Amino acid sequence: MTACAALKEGGSSAPMVIQEQGSFAVGGTVVIAPGTFDPIAHGAFNPANQASEGQTLHGDHAYVFYQKPQKARELPLVFWHGYGQSAKTWETTPDGPEGFQSIFLRNGYPVYLIDQPKRGKAGRSTEPNTIPAKPDDQLWFGIFRMGIGREFFPGVQFSKDPEALDQFFRHITPDTGPLDIEVNINAVSALFDKIGQGVLVTHSHSGGQGWLAAIKNSNIKAIASYEPESNFVFPEGQVPEPIPYVGGQLSARGVPMEEFKDLTKIPIIIYYGDYIPEQPVENPGQEQWRAAYTMARQWRDVVNKHGGDVTLVYLPDVGLKGNTHFPMSDLNNVKVAHLLSEWLKEKGLDQ
Amino acid sequence: MTACAALKEGGSSAPMVIQEQGSFAVGGTVVIAPGTFDPIAHGAFNPANQASEGQTLHGDHAYVFYQKPQKARELPLVFWHGYGQSAKTWETTPDGPEGFQSIFLRNGYPVYLIDQPKRGKAGRSTEPNTIPAKPDDQLWFGIFRMGIGREFFPGVQFSKDPEALDQFFRHITPDTGPLDIEVNINAVSALFDKIGQGVLVTHSHSGGQGWLAAIKNSNIKAIASYEPESNFVFPEGQVPEPIPYVGGQLSARGVPMEEFKDLTKIPIIIYYGDYIPEQPVENPGQEQWRAAYTMARQWRDVVNKHGGDVTLVYLPDVGLKGNTHFPMSDLNNVKVAHLLSEWLKEKGLDQ
Repeated sequence: MTACAALKEGGSSAPMVIQEQGSFAVGGTVVIAPGTFDPIAHGAFNPANQASEGQTLHGDHAYVFYQKPQKARELPLVFWHGYGQSAKTWETTPDGPEGFQSIFLRNGYPVYLIDQPKRGKAGRSTEPNTIPAKPDDQLWFGIFRMGIGREFFPGVQFSKDPEALDQFFRHITPDTGPLDIEVNINAVSALFDKIGQGVLVTHSHSGGQGWLAAIKNSNIKAIASYEPESNFVFPEGQVPEPIPYVGGQLSARGVPMEEFKDLTKIPIIIYYGDYIPEQPVENPGQEQWRAAYTMARQWRDVVNKHGGDVTLVYLPDVGLKGNTHFPMSDLNNVKVAHLLSEWLKEKGLDQ
Repeated sequence: MTACAALKEGGSSAPMVIQEQGSFAVGGTVVIAPGTFDPIAHGAFNPANQASEGQTLHGDHAYVFYQKPQKARELPLVFWHGYGQSAKTWETTPDGPEGFQSIFLRNGYPVYLIDQPKRGKAGRSTEPNTIPAKPDDQLWFGIFRMGIGREFFPGVQFSKDPEALDQFFRHITPDTGPLDIEVNINAVSALFDKIGQGVLVTHSHSGGQGWLAAIKNSNIKAIASYEPESNFVFPEGQVPEPIPYVGGQLSARGVPMEEFKDLTKIPIIIYYGDYIPEQPVENPGQEQWRAAYTMARQWRDVVNKHGGDVTLVYLPDVGLKGNTHFPMSDLNNVKVAHLLSEWLKEKGLDQ
């Protein structure tokens, strides 16, 4: 099936033919409490007086839901969400049409959707956590570049139906344990050990983790990254200065040159949406992305200087205007998907 | 497609033809913090110093993933998990074969899989919570009637491959906010408002919530309940005495006769697995189910006395031995599904 067919079929009413689907946990660890468990003395449910002695806790795994279409392409797409999100990012969009899960399934790719450790259905953590439940929707409205405060940006690719924004806010889901990128990277690497070669598709906070996962696991044959925001990986000794912005500063991460070189061996494409200023502005919600996009350009140049194949796309530069921090679920997401399809084809990853 | 076809196709390698699939949030509430949000002053991400003033929090919704097969039957099956679980209950089984999601999809039913409020991908809660991360796998091994301590029951319908038990433990996922059955019931009722008539399939803790949901929403046209464990609903004045068991006691709930009568208007089937003793034993893991099964019999009799249509099946009585608290994901789950298919057909719910 061609990329054009994918474009045509986005939101299609044609049926999908699924050869196989299912879900599993992958990665993680097992904690064992000292002592001996007595099932007779301590086998009744009593949260207020629980005896952990001698019991195990299986946690820190990722949860993965997958679907393989009939006559599938060889390399699956493995979708990894960002901060405060789950695999919902790639499912039905806030206003109702299909997300990348179904768009790329229709386009012939096996799809794997990750809930990273301590998020979504992978909620079992080996460390405790407190979830504050503090109202912060408008903070995210700003950081996700929907607009400022409660006002949408003019021309934004987001439905003005209040139900769409309601759905969007309900995509947010908290960490059930302390966020630990090593735990996340280990689980995603374990996934690629299990499924073999594939293309990793990251978003936002998983962007930087994706570079580190690709260093760890050579089954990651390519990366498409939507709006990576931290943990850009440079060779030790060539780490750039932190980039200050209104509200914080963005630091890069150094790794040995030998590890960095792994990132020069696979094709990588990075996309950013709209409303990212070139010069500092007063709105922190945009500032963070000015820093990220600036560092992404530096990073692209360093990787490519060492023989890499990094493409950086600012969506307005290729005619896609109005995208938020979530191009994969914006109103024009079929066009956004089409760009990825074309790139996968160009790199021979669509066989 | 007949129920026998479903039986034959459980774990089949035949493709599934999906007319439509997707996910959405349903139900829930919106909290608004007093004050005014200043996106310039407070628009930067800073968990340690977050200003909630004037911001909203969308939470307490359910998350639902659905799939509709081509040439679907009229009434969807709506699957609702139990305590400490998510929709994973109905997906791939711990040892790998298909769960009820795919089995009933192959059998022609639209399927809706719920993560109840504050669980799984519906993690956003309007109230804070602390998750202790205390080792308790063996407590659940007992309560879920896999065996006692670390020893499986003889003849149990669960794989002895250690990987299966590892997967099983990783199905557990915590509450991200205080568990509140009214919140859950409201969200499930909102789901039936959205999708119209359907058959509710409950498990364990959702069993009692399911009776209350059916009183609230007449779009619930039938209920199949696997091992309901609490909140059996009796007419006020006819509430039975609590049933004591080793480790606790099981109380029933009273509702006005007019509400109770709603439960006499729909067909209901209840299934329990194996290893439930008739007489008290010393093991709390089994005792809880002795009480539940005892009360389920009383409940069946009272509902039927008032003109209801409740069938209660102890699986060993119909030839299925060795089932745990999770018949839908046990080794013989295709046979367990077949029983449900036959009942749906018998009640004319398979059109």
